[in-house]
Amino acid sequence: MSKLWQKTTTVDELVENFTVGRDREFDAQMAAFDVLGSLAHTRMLQSIGLLSSEDLDLVQKELKSIYKDIDAGNFTIEADVEDVHSQVETLLTRRIGDAGKKIHSGRSRNDQVLVDLKLFFRHELQQVVEEVKALFDLLIELSEKHKAVLLPGYTHLQIAMPSSFGLWFGAYAESLVDDLELLLAAYKITNKNPLGSAAGYGSSFPLNRTLTTQLLGFESLNYNVVYAQMGRGKTERVIAQALSSIAATLAKMAMDQTLYLSQNFGFVSYPDNLTTGSSIMPHKKNPDVWEIMRGKCNRLQALPNDVAMMTTNLPSGYHRELQLLKELLFPAFGELKQCLNMAAFMLQHIEVKADILNDPKYAYLFSVDEVNKLVLQGMPFRDAYKKIGADIEQGNFNADKKANHTHEGSIGNLNNAEIAGAMEKLLRSFDFDKTKKSVESLVS
Amino acid sequence: MSKLWQKTTTVDELVENFTVGRDREFDAQMAAFDVLGSLAHTRMLQSIGLLSSEDLDLVQKELKSIYKDIDAGNFTIEADVEDVHSQVETLLTRRIGDAGKKIHSGRSRNDQVLVDLKLFFRHELQQVVEEVKALFDLLIELSEKHKAVLLPGYTHLQIAMPSSFGLWFGAYAESLVDDLELLLAAYKITNKNPLGSAAGYGSSFPLNRTLTTQLLGFESLNYNVVYAQMGRGKTERVIAQALSSIAATLAKMAMDQTLYLSQNFGFVSYPDNLTTGSSIMPHKKNPDVWEIMRGKCNRLQALPNDVAMMTTNLPSGYHRELQLLKELLFPAFGELKQCLNMAAFMLQHIEVKADILNDPKYAYLFSVDEVNKLVLQGMPFRDAYKKIGADIEQGNFNADKKANHTHEGSIGNLNNAEIAGAMEKLLRSFDFDKTKKSVESLVS
Amino acid sequence: MSKLWQKTTTVDELVENFTVGRDREFDAQMAAFDVLGSLAHTRMLQSIGLLSSEDLDLVQKELKSIYKDIDAGNFTIEADVEDVHSQVETLLTRRIGDAGKKIHSGRSRNDQVLVDLKLFFRHELQQVVEEVKALFDLLIELSEKHKAVLLPGYTHLQIAMPSSFGLWFGAYAESLVDDLELLLAAYKITNKNPLGSAAGYGSSFPLNRTLTTQLLGFESLNYNVVYAQMGRGKTERVIAQALSSIAATLAKMAMDQTLYLSQNFGFVSYPDNLTTGSSIMPHKKNPDVWEIMRGKCNRLQALPNDVAMMTTNLPSGYHRELQLLKELLFPAFGELKQCLNMAAFMLQHIEVKADILNDPKYAYLFSVDEVNKLVLQGMPFRDAYKKIGADIEQGNFNADKKANHTHEGSIGNLNNAEIAGAMEKLLRSFDFDKTKKSVESLVS
Amino acid sequence: MSKLWQKTTTVDELVENFTVGRDREFDAQMAAFDVLGSLAHTRMLQSIGLLSSEDLDLVQKELKSIYKDIDAGNFTIEADVEDVHSQVETLLTRRIGDAGKKIHSGRSRNDQVLVDLKLFFRHELQQVVEEVKALFDLLIELSEKHKAVLLPGYTHLQIAMPSSFGLWFGAYAESLVDDLELLLAAYKITNKNPLGSAAGYGSSFPLNRTLTTQLLGFESLNYNVVYAQMGRGKTERVIAQALSSIAATLAKMAMDQTLYLSQNFGFVSYPDNLTTGSSIMPHKKNPDVWEIMRGKCNRLQALPNDVAMMTTNLPSGYHRELQLLKELLFPAFGELKQCLNMAAFMLQHIEVKADILNDPKYAYLFSVDEVNKLVLQGMPFRDAYKKIGADIEQGNFNADKKANHTHEGSIGNLNNAEIAGAMEKLLRSFDFDKTKKSVESLVS
Repeated sequence: MSKLWQKTTTVDELVENFTVGRDREFDAQMAAFDVLGSLAHTRMLQSIGLLSSEDLDLVQKELKSIYKDIDAGNFTIEADVEDVHSQVETLLTRRIGDAGKKIHSGRSRNDQVLVDLKLFFRHELQQVVEEVKALFDLLIELSEKHKAVLLPGYTHLQIAMPSSFGLWFGAYAESLVDDLELLLAAYKITNKNPLGSAAGYGSSFPLNRTLTTQLLGFESLNYNVVYAQMGRGKTERVIAQALSSIAATLAKMAMDQTLYLSQNFGFVSYPDNLTTGSSIMPHKKNPDVWEIMRGKCNRLQALPNDVAMMTTNLPSGYHRELQLLKELLFPAFGELKQCLNMAAFMLQHIEVKADILNDPKYAYLFSVDEVNKLVLQGMPFRDAYKKIGADIEQGNFNADKKANHTHEGSIGNLNNAEIAGAMEKLLRSFDFDKTKKSVESLVS
Repeated sequence: MSKLWQKTTTVDELVENFTVGRDREFDAQMAAFDVLGSLAHTRMLQSIGLLSSEDLDLVQKELKSIYKDIDAGNFTIEADVEDVHSQVETLLTRRIGDAGKKIHSGRSRNDQVLVDLKLFFRHELQQVVEEVKALFDLLIELSEKHKAVLLPGYTHLQIAMPSSFGLWFGAYAESLVDDLELLLAAYKITNKNPLGSAAGYGSSFPLNRTLTTQLLGFESLNYNVVYAQMGRGKTERVIAQALSSIAATLAKMAMDQTLYLSQNFGFVSYPDNLTTGSSIMPHKKNPDVWEIMRGKCNRLQALPNDVAMMTTNLPSGYHRELQLLKELLFPAFGELKQCLNMAAFMLQHIEVKADILNDPKYAYLFSVDEVNKLVLQGMPFRDAYKKIGADIEQGNFNADKKANHTHEGSIGNLNNAEIAGAMEKLLRSFDFDKTKKSVESLVS
Repeated sequence: MSKLWQKTTTVDELVENFTVGRDREFDAQMAAFDVLGSLAHTRMLQSIGLLSSEDLDLVQKELKSIYKDIDAGNFTIEADVEDVHSQVETLLTRRIGDAGKKIHSGRSRNDQVLVDLKLFFRHELQQVVEEVKALFDLLIELSEKHKAVLLPGYTHLQIAMPSSFGLWFGAYAESLVDDLELLLAAYKITNKNPLGSAAGYGSSFPLNRTLTTQLLGFESLNYNVVYAQMGRGKTERVIAQALSSIAATLAKMAMDQTLYLSQNFGFVSYPDNLTTGSSIMPHKKNPDVWEIMRGKCNRLQALPNDVAMMTTNLPSGYHRELQLLKELLFPAFGELKQCLNMAAFMLQHIEVKADILNDPKYAYLFSVDEVNKLVLQGMPFRDAYKKIGADIEQGNFNADKKANHTHEGSIGNLNNAEIAGAMEKLLRSFDFDKTKKSVESLVS
Repeated sequence: MSKLWQKTTTVDELVENFTVGRDREFDAQMAAFDVLGSLAHTRMLQSIGLLSSEDLDLVQKELKSIYKDIDAGNFTIEADVEDVHSQVETLLTRRIGDAGKKIHSGRSRNDQVLVDLKLFFRHELQQVVEEVKALFDLLIELSEKHKAVLLPGYTHLQIAMPSSFGLWFGAYAESLVDDLELLLAAYKITNKNPLGSAAGYGSSFPLNRTLTTQLLGFESLNYNVVYAQMGRGKTERVIAQALSSIAATLAKMAMDQTLYLSQNFGFVSYPDNLTTGSSIMPHKKNPDVWEIMRGKCNRLQALPNDVAMMTTNLPSGYHRELQLLKELLFPAFGELKQCLNMAAFMLQHIEVKADILNDPKYAYLFSVDEVNKLVLQGMPFRDAYKKIGADIEQGNFNADKKANHTHEGSIGNLNNAEIAGAMEKLLRSFDFDKTKKSVESLVS
């Protein structure tokens, strides 16, 4: 494999295979972002006199053409080319000659990787946010649709208090709002420009890092160049933590689903083609999708720890194994987006059971409400409690199985509008439009 | 042990010991916050007619008195009292009779614990932020003070490029800025009111949750009552993630310190009384503080995983083991605050070595800068590279060992003001003043 | 605090508090083992001429006396003494003068800690094995007692096939057998002598490490002295893995218990005083013990990761934070032993429900058995399957609700004797008698 | 995709893709083992009268032929076939008609997967053992070869005591011995037969599980059929723990290597083609292989936690996500074998630096030895210590820089023969020959 930066020695093939591993596969996913980085970098080079206007024009034109090719799916890292950066430079040099080589001026591979990763992660985070929003909207819709259908609520897995499908769906919606807080933190940490940090110690070229920050639509800079490099591994860990939080929400929902689908609960159902079964066990509706989702999401919950284990106790400065974090993070985005998507797909087909509470085993669900009713009528709590206790003991307990709950966030007052408002407010904080405009401006 | 809520059966002592465990020890730390919750809750009860104005006055007066006692260190959970909530209720009832029992109306132990935890975590997070700020200020100060002292910069632990103490200290300062982004997300998720969620399914009382939200200075509500309970475990995990990020910054700094203190680097030193040594090995300066810090912080890095392992795959609804999360989280705050404090203490005494680069093994640090210098003078990069390579090979390489780096975030332009500005902006987002005013207004 | 090994400098109190932390608390638990190490070490010193016979007699007599005091609970680390080693040496010197100081000859604190830890861990592992055995015996007993009581067996949490309490209890018994395989590996790795490794690089004294190995009843040596030190952290991780495996078995059992106790399953019950409830929800039997056990055991499942996170990427050689591993490991033994003990306590009182399968929702449990019955009568499988499918569809399906399973390990042939045999064989591999004899011989 | 076991409903393609995922890719790796399982199972079926001798002959002949095809690399799971079991059955049925369908009698997919996994894991574990042995032999060889070359030994990363390359290489060799103890436990737990457990609750067929145990060369049975299923996830976790222990040894070695290769240590070197560098930084020898190894091994260290997170809190009985454990475990074997192999490859080319201790910074390495020398000559320790301390202070300290260490495991007495003996003893416990004979007997 030819390395543009390798001068005199040949690295043994065994070493090459071991150290490069699957990296080219992940690099290919960063191609569009590598081109964006070069579009911005070369405009900056020209502005500080390190690239002529003629060369800039040549380079910009061809980079935009490569960007379109990538967008159209026409890009691969050739067999004897080391990485995505070399592939782009190779294509450029083939087409415009020596001017193509100048895109590397004032950059090292290290900060080129850093900026590609940041742009890639930023893009993926946006996609995750969009999937979260779609699932959120569906959950709010289901919460409203089924708000009148009551469910037993459990504590200690014991039947405890009246709940409802409105509460149940709405709870997961609101959980996604808090998950988005973490995602916003991850996005902010990601959306800072490391370009110009070179090998992690800066450069003697008079780079204008503020300019590339603006061109690439970053919110601000990773100022300190040692920190820009130190952010590798850390950015990945923070993103993994944010993804793991969404995954935890989905995993819990999946656990509820497998219980509620069990014949021992029987609270929800799905069409036959979304579960698996057997003709001699006609009752069986195996919730394979929810089980696989639970497994995938629990694996994502372990991801931040994987990243931490790979990066802890590394002194400051670049270390080669940071490359392996791509193997952890890149597939994680795909997995989580797929899980969010499948959760929405399944929920679109969920059937909720009415009249669950008619089963006599749920008889005492309303005993607390009955006590409260007496209290509201003026009976001291202790007396009310004793009266209901005695009624139950003597078999005189009757509840009307209606939950007259009216306070904020209760069965009768779900606050879904407020929850949706909180989601909207958070979404606006991401400011995706600014990013979008910057990128469009660079490539058009 | 007497349980206020236990009516008819006695729980075996063995069971009691196993299930209560160290919980009273942690509960005691929440006492002040439990009183705050009751101060707000009773004002709300009166506003909806569930408590008379007379009773409210009695209760408020005594709760404020208990709050002062707690503040003065005069509060313990008595041997036969189950938890902090019962202890407060017991004290109250002793002093004002039956009116004291009414503070529990419209609440369950579950949401009382939830609100206490939120208030406690909010308070601890603020303290962590303050310790972070103190360390940050010191790092910026050290970065400015030693900005002219050069260091070798490493990649792959190989000598690579010129760096500086200015960059090194500044990098850790900027790392804390990003850590604060996560802390802010954790703070926002924490700072929502769960009170009114009862056992996790709401209540048939016409509670005014918006009022308690305002009184307790929460930013908003955990609206959905099922989600309010679901947030337990999740809040802890998110906080643990935020703490772990700061811990990762400190652990990396500690690893650098132990290397730089090794005689094989010898970049920094400390007074004898801050290290341990031996008179027959006079060169030894064991960096015990940094090693213990590295260990404590790496343990904190594993904390989010501990929380996740204890909570994953639990279906929705309360489960008793959520109580054990206190054993994980409560000591973690103390550990991290102590580590932040000790890091600042040590750094106040750090001695940096001048003239490190005079050692001939750092000779080639400036070779890239020399190449760049020729390029800036007009020589094509490839020719400049060849020339310097030949100079080195022939022993003609001489660098002036000055790093003329000028771009944003480089040795000569550290951007510490910008980094401090980013820190200030983040700090303002916490809005601690609002919280402080609410708490003061409740207890005065 | 006075340090016997500290010569010229005073360490700041702040540093002292931070670096010593809770270590003295854990050290106190190692006192008896520290004395054992010194009993063996001094006999070896005399054998190589580094201690006179007279001094040896003095030292042995007093060490044995201190051992008895420790055994009787009369030992504390005094306020101004640094650690357990110094405390023992101090006591000795008070009583027999300068001869007491000689017990440190040819040892460093590092290998003294190592041997204390190994002896302590060996002792704790034996206790864990004994608790495992007690629980195992009870599970086998319950499996035999309830072997005729059928249970629904679930796959995907869907009702699937007939199972039995005999199978259920027996499965957890057999799980403990496999857990003991890991515990045996941990025991073997622990039961090797590190004494003589000094600070991790050996000594210029002509120590006889084979002799101390025999005296202390170790199976063999950690030969290489660098490895002896490298084993610190590793021993802890391996032990944590073994403990975590038992914890995983208990956690799964606890999850089954909380489900089976739920009114939606109702397969088992416990006396009122072992659960918590409420007089107005008379059906509630909260399984607090099992929930707390699940939580404690899941925390133990995260323990190996905690150890790995604290030790990974540390280069070879001693590092001070290894001390903190005591905070992780020492309480873990107590937690696991308590959980094993409480599991046995609870299971002694479990009540299993007969006639569970009379509930019509379990009707199709036997459909596979009915297909098999036809196959055994000669009908091709496909035809038999179709016939039963048709019977079910037309409402003609009737099963006799008896599970005629006869093969090894099935409902009718539990193989409990074979499982108990496997347990016995493993227990013999630990060879606790040899250890016991060595220890007795040292102290008598 | 056609499912042999699916009767009446079609599962949506989206569901199919989500739930099957990459499973076919991993299934293909189990093909040979699936055939072995069927070879044993059908012989057992015939022995209990569920398969005619004629059918058995047909089936055995074709299964052996398929086994040869797999061995020759001529096996793929066809696009419309669900899994490896269906593929084998399909091939068989194409060739011998209905007799091919009978191999599934008395088995469920669940126990077919279980036995395939056990056979696959057993095979992989043997390969890992062989790689460990090869690296171990090399380490012992290097330890002997370089036993006279001294190294500084560090504590707290401070220069402390004389060490040697003999000790350093030997320590890692002995570390592998202890790692093999864990691997043996994992092997024993793996090497038990789950076949006959059906869906996890046994079968009403009179299976002879002892016979399949013997035929497949298993050490014994997973007796209890509920436990046989419960072992899934657990076997994976135990194996992951064993692999992680080897990985921890390699990761520590890799960290040492990157330090020792740093110019600040300079203890070892490698040929240029095994490192990467730069012609303008001629001193650079980037240890990419060791860094990637450290990263891969640290990721493996996190693997047991990944498995635990995916399986904890699942109640007993099969759950679909257990399938995903293949994605975690299968690549892990390949990664670890590659790391073991690359470690040996690199170590074959390691160059150790002689005369390291001539550097004056290592002057005090021998101060403890000099104290000991005086003690051995009769001077009391305290006096000897004072004298050497004074010599050092006055600049009169001279050591001969020879380490006269003679005790077991020290610089002059490495005990490599004893360490090799311990390794040999452990290797014999695996009893691979028995397994090999059983497999050969089945397929020939």
